[in-house]
Amino acid sequence: MKGNLLYEGKAKQVFNVVGEEEKLILSYKNDATAFNGKKKESFVGKGRYNNLISAKIFNYLHEKGIPTHFEKGLNETEQLVKKTTIIPLEVVVRRIAAGSITRRLPIKEKTPFIPPLVELFFKDDVLDDPLVNDDHALLLTDVTKEELQMIKETAVAIGEHLADFFYLVNLSLVDFKLEFGRTVDGQIVLSDEISPDTCRLWDVDTGEKMDKDVFREDLGDLMDVYNKILARLEEI
Amino acid sequence: MKGNLLYEGKAKQVFNVVGEEEKLILSYKNDATAFNGKKKESFVGKGRYNNLISAKIFNYLHEKGIPTHFEKGLNETEQLVKKTTIIPLEVVVRRIAAGSITRRLPIKEKTPFIPPLVELFFKDDVLDDPLVNDDHALLLTDVTKEELQMIKETAVAIGEHLADFFYLVNLSLVDFKLEFGRTVDGQIVLSDEISPDTCRLWDVDTGEKMDKDVFREDLGDLMDVYNKILARLEEI
Ligand SMILES: Nc1ncnc2c1ncn2[C@@H]1O[C@H](COP(=O)(O)OP(=O)(O)OP(=O)(O)O)[C@@H](O)[C@H]1O
Ligand SMILES: Nc1ncnc2c1ncn2[C@@H]1O[C@H](COP(=O)(O)OP(=O)(O)OP(=O)(O)O)[C@@H](O)[C@H]1O
Ligand SMILES: [Mg+2]
Ligand SMILES: [Mg+2]
Repeated sequence: MKGNLLYEGKAKQVFNVVGEEEKLILSYKNDATAFNGKKKESFVGKGRYNNLISAKIFNYLHEKGIPTHFEKGLNETEQLVKKTTIIPLEVVVRRIAAGSITRRLPIKEKTPFIPPLVELFFKDDVLDDPLVNDDHALLLTDVTKEELQMIKETAVAIGEHLADFFYLVNLSLVDFKLEFGRTVDGQIVLSDEISPDTCRLWDVDTGEKMDKDVFREDLGDLMDVYNKILARLEEI
Repeated sequence: MKGNLLYEGKAKQVFNVVGEEEKLILSYKNDATAFNGKKKESFVGKGRYNNLISAKIFNYLHEKGIPTHFEKGLNETEQLVKKTTIIPLEVVVRRIAAGSITRRLPIKEKTPFIPPLVELFFKDDVLDDPLVNDDHALLLTDVTKEELQMIKETAVAIGEHLADFFYLVNLSLVDFKLEFGRTVDGQIVLSDEISPDTCRLWDVDTGEKMDKDVFREDLGDLMDVYNKILARLEEI
């Protein structure tokens, strides 16, 4: 049973679960934000799409042996997860160059990264989620050197699984953002969401952008795109 | 014999050496720049101070077994060095928090870093020398993973030697920037300069800033400070 609201983020509400202290309910909202919250809009249906898409992805990763916070879908917009203490790092894996890296560094859009490139950003809205190196991450979080190495390797491994998964529905995985958290018993597991909000996905045939960049760059009807992704995933 | 001007930077001119293809002459200028060249001023005597101070430091590091480009001082403002292909990374070692890191991250000025923290910045004036992680550095330069590890470890080891050296003259080494280059035979050696332009130095007793921050923050007579550092170093 849904308990009190613990935290409200930009994309999700987080609720306690009555009688199950080590669980949480993630309730996906219809809000879309970009550029660290500077661009904002609400889309009917977005919470449902991301909840259902993220659940499918976490189920797939579970099958592949990746430890995650995901327990089960509850309804169209909510899912049950293990409560974790989020490690305040956005772990970004880039397989093909796009977005901020092409502005920060002399790297052209569409350059393939082989092996994939891993970036860490310190989760701090006031500081605009700055890029950090491993030394910074070790200083600013409670993860050990070995854990950080494991997180980065797991992120790359997740990327292989995700790329396989999306390729089944004719989508090319360009990059994605992960968050990891520590469960009550100290284990580090994949947490948060994986959705077209947190991945760059390009149609394999047309190259069409099928992710939140449609909102960032005003390229068309965002919900149309999210609906297509869910429909394709429901066919496999 | 001094050959033609090969390159002119913000702080030094670089000359070929007639008949010695694998050598260069570094000629220290009187210009001071800060904030990636946005603040600029000329100080009579600065070239001499930095040339003499840098030579003393490179001699000390040579004694300690650190491979460097330094060959010998030629005159008050010039020194002979091995020609290297500079690896386009600024290797910053921070022993105490100061400067940009206290604005980028939630780290208070004067926080000690134990062990010292290493940062890499990609040398690119147009992109404002962006912070990079190891993956970026491997992608953007020709160094191998093992060489990058060696560079970072050498930088920290250099920091220990520099801290000892400056402590002899009652200066606390806060942070510093190094550049490494590859000699004609492929060896990676410490290059460029080490001077109050590239180190943060605080007087051990008074905490007074005795480096280019005096220029950055308009704290007083820069040449007075550089003169004091050279005078203290000449006593040991
Ligand atoms: N298993 C979990 N346990 C605890 N918190 C979680 C878990 N999974 C995700 N969260 C957190 O839920 C919060 C709400 O998600 P949302 O995506 O809305 O946040 P946000 O607005 O992106 O920003 P921020 O992550 O900075 O709070 C996030 O802080 C996220 O890290
Ligand atoms: N041994 C060496 N061989 C070749 N180049 C060197 C050597 N030591 C230093 N340099 C280079 O000499 C140039 C001139 O130095 P200076 O400090 O004036 O440059 P700068 O203006 O700081 O900027 P930049 O390093 O971006 O050119 C630098 O590019 C530096 O990397
Ligand atoms: Mg989020
Ligand atoms: Mg320089």
